[in-house]
Amino acid sequence: MKKALLFLSLVSAPALAGEGKWTPQQVLELNPAELKKQGLQVPPQRLWDPKRGTGLLAGTVNVGGCSGAFISELGLVITNHHCAFPIIQEHSTPERDLISQGFLARSREEELPGKGARIQVPRAFTDVTGQMLAAVPAGADDLARHKALERKEKELIAECEKRPATRCIVSRFEGGLRFTLIDSVELTDSRLVYAPPRSVGEYGGEVDNWMWPRHTGDFAILRAYVAPDGSAAPYNAQNVPYKAEFFFPLATQGVKPDDFVMVLGYPGTTFRALLADEMAERQARYYPRVIDVYGEIIRILEAAGEKDPAGKIAVASNLKGLHNRHKNAGGQIAGLKRGHIVDKQRAAEEAVVAWARTRPAFAGALEARTGLLALREEGAKSFEHDLLLDTLAFSAKSTALSTRLARLSRERVKPDLEREPEFMDRELPRLKDWLEREQKNFFAPADKQVLLSLVRRAQALGEGERITAIDRYFGPVYSEKETAAKIEALYAGTKVLDLAERQKMAGETEAQLRARQDPLLDLGFALAAEIAVLKEARDRRSGANLRLRPEWRRAFLAHAGKPVAPDANGSLRVTFAKVKGYAPRDGILYTPQTTLAGVLEKNTGATPYDVPEKVLRAAEAQRFGAWKDARLKDVPVNFLSDADTTGGNSGSPTVNGKGQLVGVNFDRVWENVANDFGYNPDVARNVNVDVRYVLWLLDQVEDADALLRELGVRKGPQAKESR
Amino acid sequence: MKKALLFLSLVSAPALAGEGKWTPQQVLELNPAELKKQGLQVPPQRLWDPKRGTGLLAGTVNVGGCSGAFISELGLVITNHHCAFPIIQEHSTPERDLISQGFLARSREEELPGKGARIQVPRAFTDVTGQMLAAVPAGADDLARHKALERKEKELIAECEKRPATRCIVSRFEGGLRFTLIDSVELTDSRLVYAPPRSVGEYGGEVDNWMWPRHTGDFAILRAYVAPDGSAAPYNAQNVPYKAEFFFPLATQGVKPDDFVMVLGYPGTTFRALLADEMAERQARYYPRVIDVYGEIIRILEAAGEKDPAGKIAVASNLKGLHNRHKNAGGQIAGLKRGHIVDKQRAAEEAVVAWARTRPAFAGALEARTGLLALREEGAKSFEHDLLLDTLAFSAKSTALSTRLARLSRERVKPDLEREPEFMDRELPRLKDWLEREQKNFFAPADKQVLLSLVRRAQALGEGERITAIDRYFGPVYSEKETAAKIEALYAGTKVLDLAERQKMAGETEAQLRARQDPLLDLGFALAAEIAVLKEARDRRSGANLRLRPEWRRAFLAHAGKPVAPDANGSLRVTFAKVKGYAPRDGILYTPQTTLAGVLEKNTGATPYDVPEKVLRAAEAQRFGAWKDARLKDVPVNFLSDADTTGGNSGSPTVNGKGQLVGVNFDRVWENVANDFGYNPDVARNVNVDVRYVLWLLDQVEDADALLRELGVRKGPQAKESR
Repeated sequence: MKKALLFLSLVSAPALAGEGKWTPQQVLELNPAELKKQGLQVPPQRLWDPKRGTGLLAGTVNVGGCSGAFISELGLVITNHHCAFPIIQEHSTPERDLISQGFLARSREEELPGKGARIQVPRAFTDVTGQMLAAVPAGADDLARHKALERKEKELIAECEKRPATRCIVSRFEGGLRFTLIDSVELTDSRLVYAPPRSVGEYGGEVDNWMWPRHTGDFAILRAYVAPDGSAAPYNAQNVPYKAEFFFPLATQGVKPDDFVMVLGYPGTTFRALLADEMAERQARYYPRVIDVYGEIIRILEAAGEKDPAGKIAVASNLKGLHNRHKNAGGQIAGLKRGHIVDKQRAAEEAVVAWARTRPAFAGALEARTGLLALREEGAKSFEHDLLLDTLAFSAKSTALSTRLARLSRERVKPDLEREPEFMDRELPRLKDWLEREQKNFFAPADKQVLLSLVRRAQALGEGERITAIDRYFGPVYSEKETAAKIEALYAGTKVLDLAERQKMAGETEAQLRARQDPLLDLGFALAAEIAVLKEARDRRSGANLRLRPEWRRAFLAHAGKPVAPDANGSLRVTFAKVKGYAPRDGILYTPQTTLAGVLEKNTGATPYDVPEKVLRAAEAQRFGAWKDARLKDVPVNFLSDADTTGGNSGSPTVNGKGQLVGVNFDRVWENVANDFGYNPDVARNVNVDVRYVLWLLDQVEDADALLRELGVRKGPQAKESR
Repeated sequence: MKKALLFLSLVSAPALAGEGKWTPQQVLELNPAELKKQGLQVPPQRLWDPKRGTGLLAGTVNVGGCSGAFISELGLVITNHHCAFPIIQEHSTPERDLISQGFLARSREEELPGKGARIQVPRAFTDVTGQMLAAVPAGADDLARHKALERKEKELIAECEKRPATRCIVSRFEGGLRFTLIDSVELTDSRLVYAPPRSVGEYGGEVDNWMWPRHTGDFAILRAYVAPDGSAAPYNAQNVPYKAEFFFPLATQGVKPDDFVMVLGYPGTTFRALLADEMAERQARYYPRVIDVYGEIIRILEAAGEKDPAGKIAVASNLKGLHNRHKNAGGQIAGLKRGHIVDKQRAAEEAVVAWARTRPAFAGALEARTGLLALREEGAKSFEHDLLLDTLAFSAKSTALSTRLARLSRERVKPDLEREPEFMDRELPRLKDWLEREQKNFFAPADKQVLLSLVRRAQALGEGERITAIDRYFGPVYSEKETAAKIEALYAGTKVLDLAERQKMAGETEAQLRARQDPLLDLGFALAAEIAVLKEARDRRSGANLRLRPEWRRAFLAHAGKPVAPDANGSLRVTFAKVKGYAPRDGILYTPQTTLAGVLEKNTGATPYDVPEKVLRAAEAQRFGAWKDARLKDVPVNFLSDADTTGGNSGSPTVNGKGQLVGVNFDRVWENVANDFGYNPDVARNVNVDVRYVLWLLDQVEDADALLRELGVRKGPQAKESR
């Protein structure tokens, strides 16, 4: 790709730029002169003031697993369209189809409350490493170590959540080298203010997903509300807008190539602290199997949807998720190969090993590494069994629902702190939502086919990897006809797939459920028993990991001799970047910005390229308003930067050196998904909605007067009735 | 696409650059100062000296419908791999598979003579407009006009070809405004010197065809031989290398972006002199129907090949051609739309109309235009019938062969000058080659399906467009079962599909053929009769065109007031260009050069991306030799320029301002196929093999010592035995 350098500045800036999802605390430890040189115009303390719990990062919120940002004093939050989708869907009816048409509240009264839209605002980060480690009894074996740490975590959370409207987590860094208690305010009344039509918010659909160039307006605007006294409260008509202590002003001038930007948010999970062998296993076994298994399920759901329009709607949401993971798995394999990530990790690892050999203080790291390698080998033995059991408990709705009901009945009888985390009281509302929500995703003919496929796979497992529950119910040898007949009987004889009955079951004891003699429930109990065994093995390996990985990482970090950003773990981070394109392949350069002209260029009038009429009119008439970029001579739509993002960064504010919002992160490029294993500056690019596209839509397409005034973009007195 | 300009110089240079396939004579009429400014470093007279019939253009040869160039004093010719393919194929056996392995003659004795490899060297261009027009009798109707001009053309050719080893054509320019007699020497002993393995010469196959970025070594090297006295002669062991009066030295320094280049060669057919309505008809009816009909045939051949490995080989060559035309048709439609070519043509036309209205001298042009529009409407009436009849006479081997045999028997009894041109004595050797060659492309199960599809289409034609021969044999109404049974009977009862019998038939009279009572021959005679009727209608329209189009074009050219390059017609042309990339879509730039790294990047080890082992070894070891581009830091493989090319330019020499060979043209980009209707500088790009890739292969991969010495690239004494 070297030749690309002749044409575009594609070289990654040195030092901090690009690589690294820094924690709030780390930002304060980075070299401020270097940050300034790269383009940060505010002091690093403006990002995060740990004493007051405020700064740019306090304006960065968690929206149900996505990221988001306050953009007005009165609680307006911008996030991705796909993150706000549940609220949009909740209010859509065939008569008033907000999904297709989009939605704009022209006054505060018109804003639409969303049942499940919870917004968490970060408040404090407390190091609890000492308390966590002290909780492990001397001489504890690996299982006991895991359990002690899990227990302590639960206690810390319970204590923390005694404060009203508070949501806490204990985040693990570097495999357990540090633990941080993170305390957030949870705002439970948030309302939909603006959503573009789906054909703007999802323009390009599955085809463009992960693929530059993109032309998607993947954003929506919510508003957080609180009780009149300012405390967090569920929906109430008397509630008032949340007064955001920090919000991001919009950078109406936008960005240009090579501009400095930061992406703030809640990246989910990355794997950069894995050993080379662990990465290699994911590359060689895990992702190919994901492609295999999910690929087959995708074919089944698509074929079933072809034959039945109602079925097509039912499987749509699952298909979307499956496609996403399937495409991602392909990208991981390609990117690991392209970036030579395993080889690089191995070289880095060997350097640490050589370095540690001469330093007695790090002798433990070498043993720890050997231990981790042995642990991987042990886990590899039951790889196929474990993956298939997980899939049974997740991908066929029948076994997923019955297994969860079985586990719930067994867990609920335990004291809260002794339950598996997902069955603790604080999680039960989410579990109940799920039991209900899955009804509309259920389509029996497709689900039977999926189960058939998984049973066939189970019956093909080798000795020592058998799934007993499947063997018992379906016999050890696959016969399509026989298995299909047994599946028919299973579905015919169960009440689990009936929503009302299932909701009843969620309140019943194990004895009551057993007494139902429901064949699917019985299969669920049998699978649950095996899941419990698997879970114990995993807990034991987790305990071993918690013992070994910190030792290894301590040496790794000491050897690095400079700040190293830890793997993503769902906690708040910031990444520093530049706006820049890249060379995906020899002979091709991707420019870092796309425009309205490109939206029109892709328009076919049919999904996923069906530009809504009102957008088409404004774009074709070149009604650009104030949002035309002088150099592009058009309204910018999306842009790339080399920020270090991953899943969970969806909806992240992308801001300039002054802390003004220039965009909303919504995707990575396909060449960059293996970024989860290692940052490759040649292709590490995240995709952002340009704030000028947001403003152009609100201004030239929607004429969203009140909203634009609140955002400080339209001047003049605000209309009385809309404030 | 405007934004692209910020990054790459994509603006077309003014005036001569890019647009225009100039005739040798026109080159001398262009502004020499402008040519020099653009980069031509030799005087325009060096391109073509009409008195001596020499210059750069005399080094540009026609190789069986492709272009090619002399590159050594001793008759070495470089052209495309796909143009030399018949010779390569001729010498390939399962034991010595030159197609897969490639071929290098290490001495002159090893060079392989090719049966059908004819090389034509241009000698003279004579204006015969006066003689042609004088041949049309006063008061001739349109059919008589066509016939008189055709007859005169044949006479001029016959007279011209009385000289030994001479091949002549009369080329029509601007629809008959000018006629030029072109006289070439035909060298009939040419031998294969070097061909790369197919996986170099066709790297990327159908997938990459028309698609930048390309990484294809689409070239081969032949040598022309003559009798010891220097006269052209068929193969004879005593023959000696042809002494080329002009040849192109290789530019070992290659090209870089924005360099001036010229592409010389024999572009086939373009349609820029069509009226807007004529173009619109091609866009709206012709190309969509090509996609429809060829798309179905492609599906049939692919499905048949799936089931039978021998069948797959038999249909491969046809499939390649069909895919090419099918993809081309899609590109024509997309490019006509993207370039707004019809609208532009209409605007240009209207300007001429307005201009001519006030100029009595051009009053005839307005009437001529009206006449052409009426002619188009008349032709449109039988569009479906005509296209299907053509397809029957071409795409099903059974009807193609039998129709041709029938026509041959009827034509051969006429005096040579009265026959249809393709059945004149001078063409019979080619026709006989074809009758033989089609045997290996024949695969009965696929051919039956193709015929079934065409019969179904014929039976669906409307009143007044029926094909009587089909109605008579198959009945007027389609029934799959019945039609299939009749086709089975047709194939079972015929001897046309037997090579030996067919060759006999080619010598028989109509009476003998009729006496055979061969059902497929009978169908062939019935179709031939309808083709004769169609041909007469077309001849009449051709006569009308010859009457009307020159009038219209005379006004068009006068209005332009500057040199306008005529449509391509298979005659020798030159186009001036710059090396440059382009922006195919919003957010993407194509850089103008590709490299060995890109070859490796695409390599999957499987067709069409299976880099040969020896190439892989040299590329992976970065054994670049002297062929590394300092800026790309790699060996360049292909490059783009904005030359104005079309089919027939395959194998064209691409040369720098000094007349040195920098590449070999082999393709256009997909966005540019509608270039046949109008030059769109944003996307008009042709694709060239970089001469440094040629030299790298010969040097670092093949160690072709003798060849490199002859090309003046390796120094030192030439080895005795290889000269």
